[in-house]
Amino acid sequence: MGRWEPDARGRLAKAALDLYDRNGYEQTTVAEIAAQAGVTERTFFRHYADKREVLFDGSQDLQARMVAAVLAAPAGLAPLDAVAYALDAAAELMRSRHAFARRRRRVIHSHPELRSREVMKLTVLSDALAAALRDREVAEPAASLAAAAAIDVFHVGFEQWVGAAEENDFGALLRDLLGQLRTLAAG
Amino acid sequence: MGRWEPDARGRLAKAALDLYDRNGYEQTTVAEIAAQAGVTERTFFRHYADKREVLFDGSQDLQARMVAAVLAAPAGLAPLDAVAYALDAAAELMRSRHAFARRRRRVIHSHPELRSREVMKLTVLSDALAAALRDREVAEPAASLAAAAAIDVFHVGFEQWVGAAEENDFGALLRDLLGQLRTLAAG
Repeated sequence: MGRWEPDARGRLAKAALDLYDRNGYEQTTVAEIAAQAGVTERTFFRHYADKREVLFDGSQDLQARMVAAVLAAPAGLAPLDAVAYALDAAAELMRSRHAFARRRRRVIHSHPELRSREVMKLTVLSDALAAALRDREVAEPAASLAAAAAIDVFHVGFEQWVGAAEENDFGALLRDLLGQLRTLAAG
Repeated sequence: MGRWEPDARGRLAKAALDLYDRNGYEQTTVAEIAAQAGVTERTFFRHYADKREVLFDGSQDLQARMVAAVLAAPAGLAPLDAVAYALDAAAELMRSRHAFARRRRRVIHSHPELRSREVMKLTVLSDALAAALRDREVAEPAASLAAAAAIDVFHVGFEQWVGAAEENDFGALLRDLLGQLRTLAAG
């Protein structure tokens, strides 16, 4: 945080992912992460509550952007059209983070506790989108169902996106999946 | 398990829920649960790995029935029509368990770790339904999207069902929500 540690937070996050991916999440200590980032353990704990939290640094930003996109979407849209704006915002945020996301996913899936936290974050995100839809005067249960459908599309699309070795257009992928969900529901 | 402990498993589950609900999940010990059920701690651990597991005893049965329902559904159904059979099976299993489900939900929501496990169980359930759909020759991503949509309906419906003080028809509620999801997607 001080001027003597330019971007300590970012360097800690990068060091943590490097070490988790190379040596395993369980095997890596906060001391090792701090050393690789060139800071003290104390600095680590100024930025992150624990070594798990480093991996979920982006969740709040993702949620804030997706919620803001729903709230800013044109008035009068159908619920699923409003959450489509949240999916666009998510894709925009992920742009150029494909390599990072692939490595992060590998670490997350290596450990049940991390996977469980990831899934919980998606549930919290779904609840936040439902609340944003209610702010747009969408009634329940439509708000919760539309929000959950958007998160399904995000989840399925994310797995597909990070599963590919090369970065492809995440936004186009999400729009295509939303279209497929519509077709399924109509069929 | 022995004849000298008739339904020790069921009595332990009931004792655990009673104590969690009355005294709090954190505050309750395995020793107290065993004592209230009239068995030894050793018997507790023959049935459950830890005090958390007692609350998730029914998850495997629920999953097995929902998967079996998808696999047994008439051939040639659209994916969402096939998973509707899983929702019927879930409602059938829950019948007459409303009071239990309400108390259980209160305990689950009192503790983030329990809530996180509950959400993870739903994700595992969704993956299992997707696999069952693939066994029915449903391709990806349709299988994953339809399975996730069914779990959304189950999740939203369950909250609504246990939110009501009196038991109402869970199956009818789930069918109605699936219909609303179809309308949303079409709209």
